[in-house]
Amino acid sequence: MKVEKVDHISIAVRDLEAAVERWQAMLGLQVARRYRDEEGEKINVAQFQVGETIIELMEPTSPDSEVQKFLDRRGEGIMLLSLRVEDCKQALQELQGKGAVVIDQEPRRFGEARFGFVHPKSFNGVLLELISGT
Amino acid sequence: MKVEKVDHISIAVRDLEAAVERWQAMLGLQVARRYRDEEGEKINVAQFQVGETIIELMEPTSPDSEVQKFLDRRGEGIMLLSLRVEDCKQALQELQGKGAVVIDQEPRRFGEARFGFVHPKSFNGVLLELISGT
Repeated sequence: MKVEKVDHISIAVRDLEAAVERWQAMLGLQVARRYRDEEGEKINVAQFQVGETIIELMEPTSPDSEVQKFLDRRGEGIMLLSLRVEDCKQALQELQGKGAVVIDQEPRRFGEARFGFVHPKSFNGVLLELISGT
Repeated sequence: MKVEKVDHISIAVRDLEAAVERWQAMLGLQVARRYRDEEGEKINVAQFQVGETIIELMEPTSPDSEVQKFLDRRGEGIMLLSLRVEDCKQALQELQGKGAVVIDQEPRRFGEARFGFVHPKSFNGVLLELISGT
């Protein structure tokens, strides 16, 4: 597997609009994209493009969202590090073959993107996502 | 202030050598640089270059290292998000003027680099570093 870049860093927040205003005003960032995914990840997201990487703020849209569980357990903060690879499915299989605890046997889909999660216990407490596609 | 890129992401680990082996073997990354800073940050560091960003693993070299305190409090995981700016000193002043809780009034130095920390409570639980220089 070849890791091409840090695709995005996801930060769990309780109040997305307040957080967006703060990050914009403090750092001079502009929101590049917003989306709401109530069916899949149950998150409401705002993304800043910072160089080749996206910093995204996300709030849960449901009490059973993983983001809500993270907030309850640890409070606001960085929840996820996403790495861009050529082929997400192949990368997940490779990691599993090497003994990593892969959360997704098959990639999830969001639009054209394919992504899958690897358990934090396999990467020193870091919830890792591998992503490919657009 | 203009944020140019994500400079690095710092991950607190208990055993640097074991973590380096794991990240290398699993993800095919190669260590680009290592350093040990016993005087300043009290850390032992290995860095991977991933696109334009550095992912670094760091272990504490002393019980009173901030990394040790983080490990004791939260366990292993992402501790720090570092953003590259043109002028660290100016950026810290700007943030302070806007009401952010800036940990460093004046930049710290490491080689040619200038960097300073902003308190997580000002950025939704994210310990932010601003860095300039080489």
